[in-house]
Amino acid sequence: MRFFSDNAAPACPEVMAALARANRLDTAYDGDGWSARLDSVFSDLFETEVAALWVATGTAANALALAALCPPHGAIVCHRDAHIQNDECGAPEFYTHGAKLVLAEGIGAKLTPETAAAALATIRDDVHQTQPHVLSITNATEYGLVYSADETAALGALAKARGLAFHVDGARFANAVVRTGASPAALSWKAGGDALSFGFTKNGGMSADLLVFFRPELKAAALYRRKRAGHLLSKGRFLAAQILAMIEGDVWLRNARAANAAAARLAEAAGPERLILPVEANELFIRVTPAEAQRLREQGFDFYDWGPGEARLVTSWDTDLAAVDTLAAAIRAL
Amino acid sequence: MRFFSDNAAPACPEVMAALARANRLDTAYDGDGWSARLDSVFSDLFETEVAALWVATGTAANALALAALCPPHGAIVCHRDAHIQNDECGAPEFYTHGAKLVLAEGIGAKLTPETAAAALATIRDDVHQTQPHVLSITNATEYGLVYSADETAALGALAKARGLAFHVDGARFANAVVRTGASPAALSWKAGGDALSFGFTKNGGMSADLLVFFRPELKAAALYRRKRAGHLLSKGRFLAAQILAMIEGDVWLRNARAANAAAARLAEAAGPERLILPVEANELFIRVTPAEAQRLREQGFDFYDWGPGEARLVTSWDTDLAAVDTLAAAIRAL
Amino acid sequence: MRFFSDNAAPACPEVMAALARANRLDTAYDGDGWSARLDSVFSDLFETEVAALWVATGTAANALALAALCPPHGAIVCHRDAHIQNDECGAPEFYTHGAKLVLAEGIGAKLTPETAAAALATIRDDVHQTQPHVLSITNATEYGLVYSADETAALGALAKARGLAFHVDGARFANAVVRTGASPAALSWKAGGDALSFGFTKNGGMSADLLVFFRPELKAAALYRRKRAGHLLSKGRFLAAQILAMIEGDVWLRNARAANAAAARLAEAAGPERLILPVEANELFIRVTPAEAQRLREQGFDFYDWGPGEARLVTSWDTDLAAVDTLAAAIRAL
Amino acid sequence: MRFFSDNAAPACPEVMAALARANRLDTAYDGDGWSARLDSVFSDLFETEVAALWVATGTAANALALAALCPPHGAIVCHRDAHIQNDECGAPEFYTHGAKLVLAEGIGAKLTPETAAAALATIRDDVHQTQPHVLSITNATEYGLVYSADETAALGALAKARGLAFHVDGARFANAVVRTGASPAALSWKAGGDALSFGFTKNGGMSADLLVFFRPELKAAALYRRKRAGHLLSKGRFLAAQILAMIEGDVWLRNARAANAAAARLAEAAGPERLILPVEANELFIRVTPAEAQRLREQGFDFYDWGPGEARLVTSWDTDLAAVDTLAAAIRAL
Repeated sequence: MRFFSDNAAPACPEVMAALARANRLDTAYDGDGWSARLDSVFSDLFETEVAALWVATGTAANALALAALCPPHGAIVCHRDAHIQNDECGAPEFYTHGAKLVLAEGIGAKLTPETAAAALATIRDDVHQTQPHVLSITNATEYGLVYSADETAALGALAKARGLAFHVDGARFANAVVRTGASPAALSWKAGGDALSFGFTKNGGMSADLLVFFRPELKAAALYRRKRAGHLLSKGRFLAAQILAMIEGDVWLRNARAANAAAARLAEAAGPERLILPVEANELFIRVTPAEAQRLREQGFDFYDWGPGEARLVTSWDTDLAAVDTLAAAIRAL
Repeated sequence: MRFFSDNAAPACPEVMAALARANRLDTAYDGDGWSARLDSVFSDLFETEVAALWVATGTAANALALAALCPPHGAIVCHRDAHIQNDECGAPEFYTHGAKLVLAEGIGAKLTPETAAAALATIRDDVHQTQPHVLSITNATEYGLVYSADETAALGALAKARGLAFHVDGARFANAVVRTGASPAALSWKAGGDALSFGFTKNGGMSADLLVFFRPELKAAALYRRKRAGHLLSKGRFLAAQILAMIEGDVWLRNARAANAAAARLAEAAGPERLILPVEANELFIRVTPAEAQRLREQGFDFYDWGPGEARLVTSWDTDLAAVDTLAAAIRAL
Repeated sequence: MRFFSDNAAPACPEVMAALARANRLDTAYDGDGWSARLDSVFSDLFETEVAALWVATGTAANALALAALCPPHGAIVCHRDAHIQNDECGAPEFYTHGAKLVLAEGIGAKLTPETAAAALATIRDDVHQTQPHVLSITNATEYGLVYSADETAALGALAKARGLAFHVDGARFANAVVRTGASPAALSWKAGGDALSFGFTKNGGMSADLLVFFRPELKAAALYRRKRAGHLLSKGRFLAAQILAMIEGDVWLRNARAANAAAARLAEAAGPERLILPVEANELFIRVTPAEAQRLREQGFDFYDWGPGEARLVTSWDTDLAAVDTLAAAIRAL
Repeated sequence: MRFFSDNAAPACPEVMAALARANRLDTAYDGDGWSARLDSVFSDLFETEVAALWVATGTAANALALAALCPPHGAIVCHRDAHIQNDECGAPEFYTHGAKLVLAEGIGAKLTPETAAAALATIRDDVHQTQPHVLSITNATEYGLVYSADETAALGALAKARGLAFHVDGARFANAVVRTGASPAALSWKAGGDALSFGFTKNGGMSADLLVFFRPELKAAALYRRKRAGHLLSKGRFLAAQILAMIEGDVWLRNARAANAAAARLAEAAGPERLILPVEANELFIRVTPAEAQRLREQGFDFYDWGPGEARLVTSWDTDLAAVDTLAAAIRAL
């Protein structure tokens, strides 16, 4: 009964079946039939023409997106707790060749136009400082909050007003779509987004994420960047097939719904006093004393401590509802 | 009946089975049990203590190896036809942050101590030129030749004498081991090798190669470089499991033997007049007129043209022997 | 009567005379006699063996120093207001190939062991975050404060305890030496410093700063980095000659004393109520209303606004004492 | 009597006088009046609107130019003997963040449309190779040859036909202008040039070269790149003043004429049998046996050996004609 991470979960059956189907001779790299369909399938999903590239990790998707949008002498405004700042060992700096991340505030790793503008205001407009080129948000955030379509659009409007590109790290984009009920389009390009890192791995994939450009002309250079980063897998059909399997039949939505529902059930059990933040996606941050945490672990539940007196629990597409109910009861019983 | 590339081949059954077995909840990134075994399994295979990191592509393995061995202001001596020079879109330059490749000559993409020394001799020893830090060879070469243990050791000795690190791009290392009958150790560290890119994908894997350091202290920094390159897959157990499945039961040798044997059979059929180079691994380069090439294609054989009047044919672990015999007959009949 | 910047000041007579003397045929780059003396002259000055490289700017000195001390996947702890963070357009990121600056707090751009340790504490020790490799301070600080020998040593001790290299940005090192009365050694290597950017340009030079390594083995790679950055001037003797001219006869101390004294006189005139920070070097930060600032400007004094109701005044080696007294009187008269 | 290098020569009197005049308080960086005039003065000189940035070295000018014209995943075609390939320790790779130099042939370091096209033909048009973005030539070449306006235009036409930018390394541009009699415009933008590294240091400056963009929109980003490379000197007026002093009164042409004339006189003395290449600028490459070389050195002449039985002699703006005649006599007497 592990609630460590959605990265710990297995791949869902549809993905495994797709890998088996793709396991035949086909053209190498991205010359296969699965890869060839990505632009079209995602243009349909997003209701506009997009350009899409598979990659093996969300970090690669984020870093390639930022490199497409920010010159080496530029800056990227993001939340202080953003994955690109804290969890990628400097991948944005590596891929952009040294751009700077400028950190903004906000509860639950969530920016507002005000906090983003405050971060922008710290940058002098002269040649001695890297100038802002990109605004990047994560939806759902690293702390399990969700930007609504309107909230996203407000940040997109700020970006456009300041001449910035707008990037959405959607490692848990599915959870945000499910939670908000908004369309993928409404949470991306209709809100001003230029590029989206669309996560599949945490949501039931094995090793496949997708970089989506809403300005398709950005794809050409990104293809070279992907290759030179060692991310053009030689049997790329196995990545494309995973992604397509999750789009077809709306598996991606089904999986995210399951993860969100499990988290919501735990949140209800925990009650408002224990919850550090609202639970809007598939992550819970709760107050537990060390003794309480130990008691839960003794009952077989695994999770990360998240600072003193705090714990993080993550649900996933396959979280066992029986385990959820047992944990819910255990939390109530604390 | 396609002879385009060993990248076009499917994954072998043992790999697919290993993926199924690994498809359960486990610790993310490389915290799982499969990944934890790599250092030990490959230390056994190489008969010395090694440090091993999975990556998703051979390009990533090469580029991480070179970045570990060469500073940004250094140079890497390699063959003019090396994969790192011609087929990675500048990945070595990206990962090393701008090191230079210095190109050496040799038949069939194969260096000799003499050609490597000649390339080194073009570099002045002063601060106005990047100084050599690494010698890199590919075994089997990009043209299907193989370095014997002695040939490798001669190049390793040159490297050491000049204070250079020695890297082996082993995208087709298995084919070289099978062909030479030498031990993995004899073709790597015993010959002076510091790092080996050990390929599994072309040899029946789905998406897994291995970077092996024979100076284990090089691993620590490489872990950060791998992460920041977006190559620390979140469900890394699926890579480690592929690799382990191919080592166990010597699947990697069985697969390479099959590919080499298929190529040898074609070479025999082609005869010495058609062969541009000896066939020592799983690639054939033959002389065919455009008319002859067309005739083969009309019979259903696919392959790449490789310059005027030349063709490349690649066999793989699963090359159908019936197809090989049909093609052999077709070549003889030209 | 301009108090904008010490960069606006001319070069001092000794420097101009040295340029004239150096204006004869000599070996190019750093093969001349002046350049050859730097290691020895600065080993004497610092009372230990050092390696010294001239560069044309303090930004180049800082960036080369940091590149020598921090790998691309590392982090540098510095003050939020440090020049390397705010005034070099990402030069540290460029030269280190993407290292991260981790920002610490402190009054007047001055770190303490506590604030530096607090910044370090934000970094998790895992592969997902760039790990700290360098602690960098500026002495005198960007806000005109000075680290004493003891304060420097306390930070150096913290650095060593955490396994970090210790860099001192000494764009105004002379002002710090003069103010503290400490020896150059006491403010650098005796306090744990590994590298010092020793500024001459702001202190009466024309275009010469010096990168001093207290671990002389760091010089070899830095020579290549300097060349590849385009900082190996072809007539380097003109840089070395400037620097030597300022060391001989203690011109550097005389110039700094003059600048500090002028600032002190202004500080006295301003009085504690107006002073935002103590004046310890050659910069004043004072409270003035917009109306007061305008009145000063109408009397012919030029200076930068530094936020609402605040102004920065900088003195230099050649600040006219008559102008200082006039300004002092004008401030008193506000 | 040294014929080592034009970098060894002193600065000319006009430059020294300009430094003295500029030695007064003025705005820092490039905010001064001298720097402000560069765009206009060079737009006049080139008979079109240009954008101009001073830098302290030709290497910086070249590397900034190439970074403006070539993405990290691109390639630059240049001669095998180009300064950017052999004498800048990888500065182009550093500033472009890892672009590749693709080497072309040609006598005397001089490209022709045929040799440039042959180099381009080695590049496959696919994502596995860095694609060409720039053609770069050096005029006068590293071996003292000169491109005429027509020869330059032929290469510019090739560049445009292939969609490449065109860069001219003009470290000795003045020598080429003087030799060809062509206008600066004819040897640059009228021949298709996008950027020119315009050298002053070798031609009598102290430490000032100029990067000229014929597409002025390239300047904006280059300003940030220059700053982040540490090349925005804080007292930049001293660089601008040098450059202006050499343009005014055509000092740059006078100096180059003197250097070229001295070389021509030596060439005549050497005679066609000794000359390895025609002498078109200020460099001579001659055949001398080791014994002959020693005899010249015993008479007090200094120069570089340039391979077995070969020597390089460089003249400069201030080469003493008496020394030239003495050397000429000594060569004749060999």
